[in-house]
Order: sequence, then C-alpha cells, then structure tokens
Amino acid sequence: MTKALDGIKVLELCHAYNGPFCGMMLADHGAQVLKIESPRGDQCRTWGPFDKKSGESGFFAFVNRNKKGITLNLKNEEALKMFYDLVKDADVVIENYRGGVAKKLKVDYDTLKKINPRIIYGSSSGFGQTGPLSNRPCYDIVAQSMGGMVNMTGFPDGPPTKVGPSIADNVTGVFLCLGVLMALYSREKTGKGQQIDVAMLDTIFSLLENGIVNYTVGGEIPQRQGNIDPSIAPFDIFKAEDGYVAIGVGNDKLFNIFCETIGHRELLENPKFKTNDLRCKNYVGDLQNVIRKWASTKKRKYIEELFDSAGLPCGPVLDMKEAIEQPQIKARNMMVEIEHPTMGKTKFQGVTIKLSGTPGNVDFPAPLLGQHNKEIFNLSEDEYENMKKKGIF
Amino acid sequence: MTKALDGIKVLELCHAYNGPFCGMMLADHGAQVLKIESPRGDQCRTWGPFDKKSGESGFFAFVNRNKKGITLNLKNEEALKMFYDLVKDADVVIENYRGGVAKKLKVDYDTLKKINPRIIYGSSSGFGQTGPLSNRPCYDIVAQSMGGMVNMTGFPDGPPTKVGPSIADNVTGVFLCLGVLMALYSREKTGKGQQIDVAMLDTIFSLLENGIVNYTVGGEIPQRQGNIDPSIAPFDIFKAEDGYVAIGVGNDKLFNIFCETIGHRELLENPKFKTNDLRCKNYVGDLQNVIRKWASTKKRKYIEELFDSAGLPCGPVLDMKEAIEQPQIKARNMMVEIEHPTMGKTKFQGVTIKLSGTPGNVDFPAPLLGQHNKEIFNLSEDEYENMKKKGIF
Repeated sequence: MTKALDGIKVLELCHAYNGPFCGMMLADHGAQVLKIESPRGDQCRTWGPFDKKSGESGFFAFVNRNKKGITLNLKNEEALKMFYDLVKDADVVIENYRGGVAKKLKVDYDTLKKINPRIIYGSSSGFGQTGPLSNRPCYDIVAQSMGGMVNMTGFPDGPPTKVGPSIADNVTGVFLCLGVLMALYSREKTGKGQQIDVAMLDTIFSLLENGIVNYTVGGEIPQRQGNIDPSIAPFDIFKAEDGYVAIGVGNDKLFNIFCETIGHRELLENPKFKTNDLRCKNYVGDLQNVIRKWASTKKRKYIEELFDSAGLPCGPVLDMKEAIEQPQIKARNMMVEIEHPTMGKTKFQGVTIKLSGTPGNVDFPAPLLGQHNKEIFNLSEDEYENMKKKGIF
Repeated sequence: MTKALDGIKVLELCHAYNGPFCGMMLADHGAQVLKIESPRGDQCRTWGPFDKKSGESGFFAFVNRNKKGITLNLKNEEALKMFYDLVKDADVVIENYRGGVAKKLKVDYDTLKKINPRIIYGSSSGFGQTGPLSNRPCYDIVAQSMGGMVNMTGFPDGPPTKVGPSIADNVTGVFLCLGVLMALYSREKTGKGQQIDVAMLDTIFSLLENGIVNYTVGGEIPQRQGNIDPSIAPFDIFKAEDGYVAIGVGNDKLFNIFCETIGHRELLENPKFKTNDLRCKNYVGDLQNVIRKWASTKKRKYIEELFDSAGLPCGPVLDMKEAIEQPQIKARNMMVEIEHPTMGKTKFQGVTIKLSGTPGNVDFPAPLLGQHNKEIFNLSEDEYENMKKKGIF
C-alpha cells in the first residue's frame, strides 16, 4: 500500500533519541531513511535495556526501526565525498549535533545546499542554532528545567520534579518532523529547500499551556499543584485499594452525577461546593478528603466501571505492563512485533498517527552497525575491506 | 514574506486546547484558519487567566491567534448548509469532538468527503476513532494516567505524579498537525484527501521513551525515579542556596572534569565511582550526598557559570517569570507581543519551528466570538441580524 512519504529520501546524521525519533516517524510513513553512524556507532546502542541473548539495545531497536544503516567516518575526506554524493540525490538531511559541530564536520546547511539546493535540512539541538546559549551542551533534564516544566511538575510541598520520560527529546523530534513536512510541502510550491531549526528549550517552553499567560496576562507566577487542576474541581488522582485512579469532574452537571454516583448527595446541598469556582476554593482538605476516603476502600476497576457507566471521565494510573496490555492500546495497534536479525521477535510501540488513505507501518527492524554499507555503495567484499582499512567506514 | 502553508484553507471545528493547538501551528505557518465556534463559544473562552480590564481569556487568546472566527449553530439546517459550502473550498477540516459527536452533527469525514473528495480531515480525541474506548470522555489527566506517564513521574517514595502542563492535549495537537502535513504532502502526489486519527492515549504512550522496551525487551516493569536517570550518574536536580539546578554528567571524561570542578578530586580515587555503571549503583545516598552538600552552599547562577565554563551540561530550574525572561528565549523570539482589540498589548509564546526560507509569524490576534461572521459570509447588517434571529449564528 502507498505510504504518505513514499519516494522521499532522508539522510539521518542523528544520534541518541531526539533526531532519531524524527527519523523514525518519517520512516514509519514511507520515507527511505538512511541512518549514517560514525564507525563507533550511535551512543544509543550502549543504552539499555539490552536483549539478554544478543546484547542488542532495545532502546536503539525501537527508535531506529524501518531505517537502513551505514557507517561513515565523516572526518575522512573520501568518506565525506561519499556523503556528498548521497546528498545530491536526497530530499532531506536531519541532524542533532551540538551547535557548531555540523559546520566543523562540513555537513552544515550552507555547505550542503551548494551541492543540492532542493535539500531540506532539519537541525535539532538543545538550545537552537541562534542565541547566546546556541553552542552549549544540553540534556533532556536541563531543557525541562530551564524551559519551565520541572518547576510546574510535582507537589507544592515537595521538590520540583522532572517528567519521567525524556519529553524534551522526543517532542522536539516531533516538532522537527513537523518542520520537515512543512518544508517538503513548501518545496512543492517553490522548488526550494530550507533549514529547520528546533530546540529542546523552545519545545518545552511551548508546552507550558497557560503557564506563560498566567504570568503575562494574569500577573501571577504559577506554582506547581501536584495532581490537581487549579481551575477545575474535583480533578485529581486518588488512591484506591489497589492503586491510583484519575478523576475529572469538569462542570456542575457532571458534579451532580458525580455526587449521586459516589453516594454523597449531601455534597450537593453544601453551599461550599455550589459552583466550580467554590469547589476550587474549598477543594483541598475538604471535598478532597471526602473523595479520598470514598476511593480508599474501592478497587480501581470498580471505580473505572462505575464512572464510565455514569459518563464521568476517569481512568486508572497504569504501570508499564498494564499500559501495554490494555485493550485500547491493542485495538489501536500501538504495540507491534518485528523479527530482528539478532534479537529475534521484538515488541515495541507502533505508529501514533493513523492515516486512513496512506497508513504508516513498521516493516523492518533497526540496522546492525554498518549493515548496509556494501549495499548502499554497491561494493564487493574486497572493495569494502579496502575502504575499511582506509578508515572510511 | 511567503509562509510554508500559504494558500491552505483550514476549517477548525475545535474547542479547548488540543485541536486548537494544531490550528495555531497551521495558522502560524501561513494557513488561513477559520475557527468555527458554536454560538455559546469555545469553552476555552471561560478558562483563566483573564485580562483584568476586558475579562478576555488569556488561554483562548494565545492558542487562537492568527485565526479568523465565526459562529455557526451546526444543529440548524441552514447553518449546516453554510458549513458545507465552506467545505467545498477548503483543504483541511480539523475537529476534536468526543468520539461519535462529529457523526451526530453530520460533519464527519464520510459526509464531508462526498462534498469535497480532496478534503483532509484531522480528528483528535482522547481515545481515538476506533477501539473499545473510542467514545469515552477523556481529560488530559486521564490520558496521562492510562498512557503510563503518571506512574513514571515523581519519586519512588511518593505518589504517581501528573506532568504539570497538559502535555496529552498539546502534544496530541502537534501529532495532529504532523498528520495533516503528511496528508497534504501525500495529496500533492495522489490528488486524494484522507482522515487523520490521533488519540491522547496513543500520544502519551508514544512518549514513554525506553519504558516500553524496558518491559518487552528488558523484562522489567520500570518504576518512577524522581529526578535521577537510572542509567547515568550523576544526573539529578540539586537544591542550591537560592533554588534548584539540573546537572548531568554523561560519561567518564565528564565525570573527571566534574570532580575537578567541584573540588572533590578524591571521588576519582574511590573505586565505587570508577565507571558510570558503578556510579549508578552507588549513587543514591552516597555520591548524591556529596553533591547535595556541595550545591547547598552555592547560588544557582554560580553553579551554572562554573559548569558552563567547564563544558558540563547544567541549567537552573526556572519559574515561569524566569523562563520567560531568560536571554535565550528572547533571542529565539519565543515571546511575542500582539495588539488585541479588547485586551490591548498581549504577550504570549512565539513560533517554535524556525524555518529559514518560509518563517512562521504571529500576525494578528485571536477573534472575538463571531467577529468575522459578516465578513466570511459577505452579509449586510440586516441580513446578519435576520440570520441570527433564525438561530444560525
């Protein structure tokens, strides 16, 4: 079946998580993504979990599926020339070097657009290609912290809290992919390529919801609120007998149903809870305690089913096994299985964006280091060994 | 200047945050986005913070900039016909109704593609258009919980913790936008439209990093880790004299520099900290305490400058005011100011994706409710009042 990005050739000069996550989405949707690693390999190959039998990195495997892979030592002049040859024929180059490194390696946009003016060049970095911090090294935790996310996550009486998974990395990868698609669409009209510049700091900053306007329009510096929402109540996570459950009651009508459902009609008579505004003011230590007590003696499943049948938004806090195995995730094909040459059958996440006419798919596993060197450059065994000795691969 | 999506016409049947965030990105990059609200208005108009002078919602203002706005009561037959007329000429429709509602309103994909087979129809919802939970109501907190994110955020000895800002909402909006762009690109080749289906649950699930393979490949159910990374040490957030600082030391070379920099050379002699693997094992309560003690007597700014000059990834945990005012955010134009008709000068976030050839921009403010009714349908005052009486607007 046709995929949305069939025919698009992508060169991926990316390592770790953020750039490769962009490459993964392009590949899932039909682009031919060629991952170019240094002869030492993407550092992500050394990140766990590791397959017990083969020692392969599960991290590398999931984020590099659907890509072919070669090695090239870009510091070697002949290798660099081979890369330039690939650029002539490519549509997209994506890179996530630290600021300044692409230029030093002579694979920056200004260099490559002379070789191919139609090239679309996607750059992802911690702080971006411009500004005073442009060349500074960055980890996900640093971008989350400086971007304002960490200070907004966690409880008022506890420390600022990092989001568990590396969302500065992966969401920046999604933004990079979106930028590449905008540039591809634009090129259909103009015939010209361009550079996309996304930064982990900017990405986190753009996800702060109403945090920014709370300050610029509301005049307040918002504080972290734990699991409650300052403008809706009840809206919280409660401890049930066997775990936690998230419950949201967004308006008066739902609050009516909610009180009936939990058998606490008397709350409806209480003037402190008459409106959402009053409920917000009188929530903590008051309304919250009633619900806490009620939930503490129930099972998660019971609460979920009870609320679902009443039309109240609710859901259990799931651990990784439970999240993976829930029926909705299965029904949505959000888990896929693929045969990996050394790991065997491997399961990981599926394709997030469901396109009805040109659906994406996971077709083949991540490449072993340098797996497609001979194929891509059409080399005999002798030629290959020779070039390897010269330090090209 | 040309923008990437110039000429694209988008009809936004969206409310709240997730669909409108997609529309915002399309509009920032040049698409003509027409926001269609029910006569009661998007619920987001009632969400704070509110401008003290005009009472307008700062939330609505930032996420709907660059859009024109009309009202249409889609339950009115004449209004529905007027909507269909708009569809004839449109490229994209985006909607974020709860599952089943679009069909009931007769604005679902199957209906609209008969009117315009080239239409691209983007649907965003809590659980998606398919699967057993498809029609269930959902809030951000529910998707974060069931998607596995909440259980992975927070401290091992504390409760599972919601990510402060609503990342199920906004990141699903980014995925929806990416799906729309894929469909637009594909339509250039095939001439055909299609439906995009993204779900908040799928989105959160896709952001779990190596959480999923930790279970499927590594055989372990990962647990929340607070601010540390289980596979890198030191990698943590420390309390300084005047706030918190994030520090990441990714390899042995950096650990050497780190120990020199904080004046604790003796750590290098300690066999418990020889390798990253050993440092991870002996981090909590040991190496962690040394750094905690060191950081507790320093200012954030001092630590940041000290580490920056040593090339160590580091950054302060910034509150909203500090995040907004930091020089890098300013240099990247991540804050913009716009003149709003009732709020006056208003500041909010800028354009995240930087395109060198066709840059996006914030050109005009969010619409007042029904502001462009007469303009879009080319109506005289009399005609307009008449139609209003008939319940169209």
